[in-house]
Amino acid sequence: MPVMVVGSIALDTIRLPNGREYKDVPGGSCSYFIHSASFFAPVRVVGAVGGDFPKKYLDGFRKRKADLEGLQIRRGEKTFQWHGTYMADMNDRVTDALHFGVLGSFDPIVPPKFRKTSHVFLACSQPQLQARVLDQMEGSPFAVCDTIAIYIQENRAELDKLVKRCQGMIINDQEARMLSGGHNLVAAAAGLRRKYRLRFLVVKKGEHGGLLAVKDAVVPFPAYPLEKVSDPTGAGDCFAGGFVATLARLGAADLGSLKTAAVNATAVASYACQGLALAGLTRITAGDVRARAAEFAKAARLG
Amino acid sequence: MPVMVVGSIALDTIRLPNGREYKDVPGGSCSYFIHSASFFAPVRVVGAVGGDFPKKYLDGFRKRKADLEGLQIRRGEKTFQWHGTYMADMNDRVTDALHFGVLGSFDPIVPPKFRKTSHVFLACSQPQLQARVLDQMEGSPFAVCDTIAIYIQENRAELDKLVKRCQGMIINDQEARMLSGGHNLVAAAAGLRRKYRLRFLVVKKGEHGGLLAVKDAVVPFPAYPLEKVSDPTGAGDCFAGGFVATLARLGAADLGSLKTAAVNATAVASYACQGLALAGLTRITAGDVRARAAEFAKAARLG
Repeated sequence: MPVMVVGSIALDTIRLPNGREYKDVPGGSCSYFIHSASFFAPVRVVGAVGGDFPKKYLDGFRKRKADLEGLQIRRGEKTFQWHGTYMADMNDRVTDALHFGVLGSFDPIVPPKFRKTSHVFLACSQPQLQARVLDQMEGSPFAVCDTIAIYIQENRAELDKLVKRCQGMIINDQEARMLSGGHNLVAAAAGLRRKYRLRFLVVKKGEHGGLLAVKDAVVPFPAYPLEKVSDPTGAGDCFAGGFVATLARLGAADLGSLKTAAVNATAVASYACQGLALAGLTRITAGDVRARAAEFAKAARLG
Repeated sequence: MPVMVVGSIALDTIRLPNGREYKDVPGGSCSYFIHSASFFAPVRVVGAVGGDFPKKYLDGFRKRKADLEGLQIRRGEKTFQWHGTYMADMNDRVTDALHFGVLGSFDPIVPPKFRKTSHVFLACSQPQLQARVLDQMEGSPFAVCDTIAIYIQENRAELDKLVKRCQGMIINDQEARMLSGGHNLVAAAAGLRRKYRLRFLVVKKGEHGGLLAVKDAVVPFPAYPLEKVSDPTGAGDCFAGGFVATLARLGAADLGSLKTAAVNATAVASYACQGLALAGLTRITAGDVRARAAEFAKAARLG
C-alpha cells in the first residue's frame, strides 16, 4: 500500500560544530520522508521545487522508486532554502536563513491517481494548506500530520480543525508543550491525543526517544543509541516516514502495529543521523534497516 | 541476600513550585535507598544521624526491616540537612543550603556482622570515605558506587581509584558528561564502563529513563510515564536501591539480570516521584511494585 507525502523539498546549507559548511545539500521534509518511507512502502510525492533543483537529487528520489507525479517543477523560480547551524552538542541548532522561493506561493495539487491513497503524511506547512490536501482526497485516508511553533502560535484555530481531521500526529517535545500549554510531556501526549480524538500521537524527544500515546496508555520508547551523531537534520521527518509507511504496509493501527512502526521509525531515523543530509540513508539497504530494527526491538526488551 | 548501603541520612527542607515548603522531612541517599531496596532484599545501613533525628523516622526504617546496626546516633550533634527548591517544570532544582552536622566528621564503620555482605552500594560521598568502606569488607563484595560533581572536580584521582574497585556505577547524565568530558551520553556510558573496567554503568536521565552500558552494548530504557510528578527528590537513590537490591536478590549480573534490575528500579523510582519525600514509597506494598514493574516491562516491549 503506497503512502503519500506533502511537504517541502529544500536546498539546505548546514554548518556543523566542526566548522564545516555544506551548501545546497538536498533537504526538506519530503526528501527525508521519501528516503525513509521507501524502505517500507511505495511513496507518492506532492511538492514543489524551482528550476535550480539539481537533476541528480530528483534522480535520487526516483532511485527510491518515488512517484513524482505530484511534484511541481517551476522553471523560473527558486527552490526553498534552509540555512542552519548546529551547536557544539548537536542537540541545539539555529536557523540562519529561510528563502521560501517556490514555497511562497505553493498550492498543493493532488494528482487524480494519488487521490485514493490510503495513508497520507502532511509534513509541516500552514494548516490551511494541509487541509486543502485532505479536501482533494477521495474516501477517508489515514492522515497523519506534523506542525511547528509558528503555526501553533499564528494559526491555532485552523490547526485545531486540521488535526481533528487526522488519525495521527507526530510532533516534537517543544511543539507538544506549546500546543498543550503544559510542561509534562506524558500529560501533553495523553491530553492532546484525547483533545483531537486521534488514534495515536507521537511526541519525539530526539536522543531520548519518544512517547506514543494511544487510548488509555502512553508508551515510552528509547532512541537507538548512537555514540556519534554526524547530522541530525531531517531525523524527525525520517521517523515520520518510517512510522507512516509501516502503518501503510501493515494496513493496521492497533497498538502492536504502532509499536512496530515506532521501531522501524527509530531504526531509519538513527541511520539518518549517521551521515550528512541524506547520505546516511542512501548508502543502506532495506536489509540494513530491518536488521537494525530487529536488533533495537530485542535490546529494548526489558523482561 | 542482603544489600548494604553507606550514605547520608538527612532532614530535608523542600520547596515545591506550588509555593509549599516542607520542613525536616526524612531524606538523604540512605533513607531513599532503604525504602526502595527493601522491596527486593534485606537492607543493612551504615550512616550517621544526630540526636535531633526523629524516632518516628527511625521506626520507619525498622518497619522496612532495615538492620540499623551500622547507624551511628550522635546525641549532641545535628543531622545533615539539605534545603532545596524545585523550578516550575520539576526538572531543575537549586540547593538553597547544606548543613553537614554529623556528616562533617563522619567515619563509616562497618559492623563485623555486615562485613561479608555480598552487595554494597556506596552512595555519593567523598571517594576516600567510600574506599574506607571497601577496606573494611571481607571477601570481594559486588560494589556499586555513585558520585557527584564536587568529587569529580575536586577528588578525581581518588574517585578514579575507587571506581576501579567497584563492579558497577550509577550516575546521572550531568555527572557522566563531566566525568567523560564529552556530551554524547551513549559514548560517555560506553567509554566510562570501559575505562573503569566495570561490569555495568548506568546513566540516569530522569524523565527520559537511562542507559545501561555493559560489555559490547549500551541498552537504552525509558522512564515509567507519569502524568504528574509530585516530588522527584531521592528518585535517583530509589533507582539505585531497586537496582542493586534486585542484583542481590538474583545473585547474578548478566544482561538479563541487569535488565530486570533496571525494570524494578524504574518502577520503584516512579513511586518515589508520586509523593512528597518518602510518602510515595511508604504507602505501597511489594505487590504494587511487582505489578508496576511487570506492566512497565510489558509496555516497553516493542516487538
